[in-house]
Amino acid sequence: MPTFKLTLAYDGTDFFGWQLQPDRPTVQGALEAALAKILQQPIRVAGSGRTDTGVHALGQVASFEVETELPAASLQRSLNAVLPETVAVVECAVATPGFHAIRDAVRKRYRYVIHDGPVKEVFRRRYCWQVKSRLDVEAMQRGGQGLVGTHDFRSFETNWPTRDSSVRTIYAVDVTRGAGRDADLVQIEVEANGFLYNMVRAIVGTLYEVGRGKRDADWPAEVVAAQNRGAAGMTAPACGLFLLWVDYQAPIP
Amino acid sequence: MPTFKLTLAYDGTDFFGWQLQPDRPTVQGALEAALAKILQQPIRVAGSGRTDTGVHALGQVASFEVETELPAASLQRSLNAVLPETVAVVECAVATPGFHAIRDAVRKRYRYVIHDGPVKEVFRRRYCWQVKSRLDVEAMQRGGQGLVGTHDFRSFETNWPTRDSSVRTIYAVDVTRGAGRDADLVQIEVEANGFLYNMVRAIVGTLYEVGRGKRDADWPAEVVAAQNRGAAGMTAPACGLFLLWVDYQAPIP
Repeated sequence: MPTFKLTLAYDGTDFFGWQLQPDRPTVQGALEAALAKILQQPIRVAGSGRTDTGVHALGQVASFEVETELPAASLQRSLNAVLPETVAVVECAVATPGFHAIRDAVRKRYRYVIHDGPVKEVFRRRYCWQVKSRLDVEAMQRGGQGLVGTHDFRSFETNWPTRDSSVRTIYAVDVTRGAGRDADLVQIEVEANGFLYNMVRAIVGTLYEVGRGKRDADWPAEVVAAQNRGAAGMTAPACGLFLLWVDYQAPIP
Repeated sequence: MPTFKLTLAYDGTDFFGWQLQPDRPTVQGALEAALAKILQQPIRVAGSGRTDTGVHALGQVASFEVETELPAASLQRSLNAVLPETVAVVECAVATPGFHAIRDAVRKRYRYVIHDGPVKEVFRRRYCWQVKSRLDVEAMQRGGQGLVGTHDFRSFETNWPTRDSSVRTIYAVDVTRGAGRDADLVQIEVEANGFLYNMVRAIVGTLYEVGRGKRDADWPAEVVAAQNRGAAGMTAPACGLFLLWVDYQAPIP
């Protein structure tokens, strides 16, 4: 029985997150409905992890097993025809037997997009957080380095722990400003071996305080040390957040 | 009494075009409502021209006169706060007295965006026409040159003439494919001294036939010569079309 690995892009604006919910549109629900229609049987998929209401993905990964003769390329075409216009299958591959999208994930990267220009953003308004203050990207970048490493990140976990341990390893925090027509866009990318609930959005809310000059670049490390969600910045809005990719290779030692 | 010149960007998806209509959301209606609220008096604006239902703008121009002490920068900030999130004032300037956005326009440029990749476009789906065939951009570019010059373009005018003459001068047709992450996007830009009703969308529908190999690159010039709307390609969907800019300088001789 082949195991399929799907890589998905979606506009999360109109979904109640990834995870299946009764009577509410979710990405998993849309995907399972499309698969059932194409494969003529109920299919349950595993996602690499939940994305919340309004959060987008460029490279979410889902897996499932099914007895079928359908080649991966045909399945991809059929899925893209049947899925809503807000969900695309970017890749569809037959995986190693037993591959499981959540259990086997070793690393993920998220991107958060902030617009800090003087004129509001019309065309990308669903895909960024629009703020009033011009941000100091270098200070944010320095501040972000205080988060890199293996730490207990409970200061960045919304008060609703979904796992026992809040220790994670952040491999990279990269804060950059776009060039040319993207000069009013600030990207914050965070790469880790796993993420707590709302962790990226709380990190962004914290770096935002540094960027607008309310806190200095040493502060994010102090927030980690405080071990208290109240110490961190606000939870940035969902609309600016994208799951970029999920890595199933062993991390470089 | 100062004359203001506004440059506007808007997402046309949810508007019934530029021009004021009773009981339907239009860009002009939204702009006039915002101006009336800020300036506490009814304002009638002149737009550089109509854009149709679903058509976007990066640089639409509107003008109006009003007795006010409000500086242009303050007016811009207030407008951006009051206007819907789908309309932005990109520039606001005090113009030469008597400036009129439609009467004084000498040249305009439109951009049309086609997505011809194998995987559907999720995030830019409101801003492009998604087609199945991979397009031959070089053939389209050659075909477009058959339109450049001063011609009677009635073959590209939807059967509802709004002006007496259908003679216009096209200065440039530029068909290009994006690079990198934009490699599945084809842009068709058309610059002219004026445009007939649905003219760009009919040109795009015509070049599309060349791009997908149904017609050769000589065909667009034959369509012009036919003087018959039935000779041209389909009218491409509104969602891919952007009014890029309006020029009020005399054209280069």
